[in-house]
Amino acid sequence: MQNDLVIGVDFGTDSVRAIVVDPRNNEVLGEDESYYPRWRDGRYCEPKHNQFRQHPRDYTEGLEACVRGAVKNAGGSAGKYVKGIAVDATGSTPCPVNQDGVPLALLAGFEDNPNAMFHLWKDHTAIQEAEEINHAAAAWGGEDYTRFQGKYSSEWFWAKILHTIRTDGQVKQAAWSWVEHCDWIPALLTGQTAPLTMYRSACAAGHKALWHSEFGGLPAREFLAQLDPYLATVRDHYGGPPQTADTRVGTMTAEWAARLGLSPHVIVGGSSFDAHAGAVGAGIAPHILVKVVGTSTVDMLIEHYEKLKGKDLKEICGQAENSIMPGYVGIEAGQAAFGDVYAWLKEILLWPLKQLLPSSGLLTEAQKNALSEEFSAKIIPEITARCQAMPDDEADLIALDWFNGRRYPLVNEHVTGAVAGLQLGTTVPHLYKALVLATAFGSRRILESFLAEGLSVERIITVGGIAQKSPFVMQTLANVLNRSISVSASTQACAKGAAMYAAVAAGVYNTLQDAQAAMSEGFLSVYIPEKERVERYNELYQKYLRLGEFVEHETLSGKEKPGDRCF
Amino acid sequence: MQNDLVIGVDFGTDSVRAIVVDPRNNEVLGEDESYYPRWRDGRYCEPKHNQFRQHPRDYTEGLEACVRGAVKNAGGSAGKYVKGIAVDATGSTPCPVNQDGVPLALLAGFEDNPNAMFHLWKDHTAIQEAEEINHAAAAWGGEDYTRFQGKYSSEWFWAKILHTIRTDGQVKQAAWSWVEHCDWIPALLTGQTAPLTMYRSACAAGHKALWHSEFGGLPAREFLAQLDPYLATVRDHYGGPPQTADTRVGTMTAEWAARLGLSPHVIVGGSSFDAHAGAVGAGIAPHILVKVVGTSTVDMLIEHYEKLKGKDLKEICGQAENSIMPGYVGIEAGQAAFGDVYAWLKEILLWPLKQLLPSSGLLTEAQKNALSEEFSAKIIPEITARCQAMPDDEADLIALDWFNGRRYPLVNEHVTGAVAGLQLGTTVPHLYKALVLATAFGSRRILESFLAEGLSVERIITVGGIAQKSPFVMQTLANVLNRSISVSASTQACAKGAAMYAAVAAGVYNTLQDAQAAMSEGFLSVYIPEKERVERYNELYQKYLRLGEFVEHETLSGKEKPGDRCF
Repeated sequence: MQNDLVIGVDFGTDSVRAIVVDPRNNEVLGEDESYYPRWRDGRYCEPKHNQFRQHPRDYTEGLEACVRGAVKNAGGSAGKYVKGIAVDATGSTPCPVNQDGVPLALLAGFEDNPNAMFHLWKDHTAIQEAEEINHAAAAWGGEDYTRFQGKYSSEWFWAKILHTIRTDGQVKQAAWSWVEHCDWIPALLTGQTAPLTMYRSACAAGHKALWHSEFGGLPAREFLAQLDPYLATVRDHYGGPPQTADTRVGTMTAEWAARLGLSPHVIVGGSSFDAHAGAVGAGIAPHILVKVVGTSTVDMLIEHYEKLKGKDLKEICGQAENSIMPGYVGIEAGQAAFGDVYAWLKEILLWPLKQLLPSSGLLTEAQKNALSEEFSAKIIPEITARCQAMPDDEADLIALDWFNGRRYPLVNEHVTGAVAGLQLGTTVPHLYKALVLATAFGSRRILESFLAEGLSVERIITVGGIAQKSPFVMQTLANVLNRSISVSASTQACAKGAAMYAAVAAGVYNTLQDAQAAMSEGFLSVYIPEKERVERYNELYQKYLRLGEFVEHETLSGKEKPGDRCF
Repeated sequence: MQNDLVIGVDFGTDSVRAIVVDPRNNEVLGEDESYYPRWRDGRYCEPKHNQFRQHPRDYTEGLEACVRGAVKNAGGSAGKYVKGIAVDATGSTPCPVNQDGVPLALLAGFEDNPNAMFHLWKDHTAIQEAEEINHAAAAWGGEDYTRFQGKYSSEWFWAKILHTIRTDGQVKQAAWSWVEHCDWIPALLTGQTAPLTMYRSACAAGHKALWHSEFGGLPAREFLAQLDPYLATVRDHYGGPPQTADTRVGTMTAEWAARLGLSPHVIVGGSSFDAHAGAVGAGIAPHILVKVVGTSTVDMLIEHYEKLKGKDLKEICGQAENSIMPGYVGIEAGQAAFGDVYAWLKEILLWPLKQLLPSSGLLTEAQKNALSEEFSAKIIPEITARCQAMPDDEADLIALDWFNGRRYPLVNEHVTGAVAGLQLGTTVPHLYKALVLATAFGSRRILESFLAEGLSVERIITVGGIAQKSPFVMQTLANVLNRSISVSASTQACAKGAAMYAAVAAGVYNTLQDAQAAMSEGFLSVYIPEKERVERYNELYQKYLRLGEFVEHETLSGKEKPGDRCF
């Protein structure tokens, strides 16, 4: 007889992935992935202006496709054994909704209006509005609303709302409230989308909307109203209080059970941001730093509320109650670019091929395509092999990893990357090694800021594409941090975390910790620091810090306009 | 009836070029180039250890081939009208010789000994010995021998000799004296190679052997003897005093007239370093800065001896009596890398092709070769076109041009290049533009150091491959310097300068100035500063200076061993 099953769904930036798991062990029975069709076609986005929007139908169609696919891959009849489902999603990714909680883009007249859709986390159209919020917070006589998240970001809830209502009167008129992507899905699946009573996740509310018990909830009406009276209205229509990811949100509607090919009575669990679900899926616990290492990083810890009282951590991380793990304060830092820095070098190196090959008369179209694919696939492995064969004392370039600004510690979106120590003999592997060291140094800076504030980090677990696929990067990271680094064996740690939410919501376990104990997939590998390199990299790290100080000082002393990035 | 003709010969790093000219006008009647065969095969060199040596037969064979070729190209019977010949060569490129002035490599037992050959200018095996010479000069109680050339370089005469005799006892034993490449050729052609009485050029003697009238000639016996008694012997066997490039050295030997296919009684003129001949060929005169712009730059001025008295210029240039132009002090500065910086980026960009294409099974060998050639030829033009189309306010990266250390002002072989302001959106054209600006900023630094010391620069003439082939670079240089820049029309300015030496030696003219007036080829183009960019680049230059200060400070504060290069 088949056991009860649960489904975890991970809404990423480009695609949504679902896994079907037996909550009693750590195996994944079936999985599937579905790319957002409108997003893939570049619709509703203007990368030049940092506008990135996603249509709600991309989410619902993708959800249906990948859940059906994962169930099918788990065995044809798996659908009828599914007892629970939960999701995670990117964020802050808010969307304007009407009084019934329906995204405006699903209403007549708004179908193709990007402002009526979900404003993806990496949308930076609200830089000016974020500055305003920070100025207002600094001038505010009452609570310090930057106390737990630090400087307010253009990527976050209130800034995006403020920017949208200033540029789109129709959306302002129609938007009764705003919802985060990760909150809308469980609300939709349970038919409980009314904004005042819907599920609002502790992760999104705490980190992005600034909900905190010490503030008595969201920031004061008066504070928001001085920015725009509309923000006070959104506050009034927010509902709450926020709930934890292991919440039992409700039972799936018959309509959705049919769409997803599941039996009725499936329990829908709470949700979180994707990185937080990844931390849970990878095994986060007190004193364990979980680091999601991909295009960027998210560095997460959990700690008891009392242990953080009185600490001023806003420059080194964001903190939110019941985020990541119920009953704890979730602590979140991260690097704005990690794998993206290597991808930048790859892009530079493939530039000649991309620019010159199309007009070359020497090859057939088929040869050109095959050659481009071969180069794209082989270039980083080839460089990596050269780096691994390189003597330790060769070419100590120093690079700065701030190619996308600096997120933590001490957020600064204006600082930029750099490479120093260049000589005529500097080669591509030298550059790559310098960039790998730079990203590892950026990680060290975050770890050291945690330790300097008295937070305890006894183990480090990594998860994500770079962690599993780049032994050279991970060994370098272990050497730079002078810490052993465990790599989670889970290829779908975020979806696995969501499946754990579902398992608790469905009553299989009482706590997420119990779900972790049973469902975690263990470790793919452990990287141990190589003693002979630790000291060498320690010296290079001091140079990295000095180069960073210089670049930051230059940025501050420049005459740049706000929003400009400049060396 | 055919006029009297003269020949100028330019010995470069990789090849020797000859031109046949009618000294009464500015036309080149015939030219030819010959590559050094042993050098091209990489013989006697160890690039990893910076050992670069050239066999004297590479010079004699190359000379014969290119003079015969140039004469042939000028018309079959041109050889019988040639009345004068003169040469220039790289330097300091000294060679150990026996008492008859025969390079040791031409003697039995030394044929394949690199130490017995010419030690090419860019040979850096004597870094340690150069340091020693500098220490000795600092400790010396008498004359300040660094007064006119600044810090002694590993590329120069005494350092190379000191290094060689320490590592090769046989060469030390056999080497009665040492001669520079540019001095050996006229000595050889006239059969006057005895070291004590041979032609010694003012350029080589003044800049590299430290000859100066204020010192009473070469550095004191005692100064040299404390470094090694052998150096005092070389001093004793040097002869002198140095002579100017327009000197009539003598009449060509019958043997050499026959080898070169010329009539007997050809007059052999004096010689100089290649850049100095280029300055003469391009039209140098007081207050005219001639800048040779190629892989590196040489920046030259001439000034009256009296005007320089009491000035301390050693950090910003080398000065030597009768160098460049007889009767003046030749002033020489330069950048250690200019076009080489762009070549570095090209090499980085072609790395994937060079590393991945050979093992690819997708193309035929012929296609691979053709593709490599096409990419190599098109990459810089393609990048340049993108740069020219780029809006002015896009991507103000700041780069440092010290990829080969800094030569002037304030020589520092330990500093390195850098690029700052990198973002994920930084593209190849952004990088290239930054490197072009960096090299132009390096030029501005030299120009400003001249002006700060009260030297006068009223015009700038450029010569060399980059000057003639890279309008984007030259326009950027004009904008950065805020000066009009004339580009010499001569494609063989060095050989043309040597032809002018020959014309004076042969009695066609009384002075080099008269030869310049008649034989100069004028200008290919003039680049005028674009006002709207001058101010913008001026701001970027301030950032360049600050980045340079930072890198230099880091270099000084590091724990590097002497000879190490490090950020």
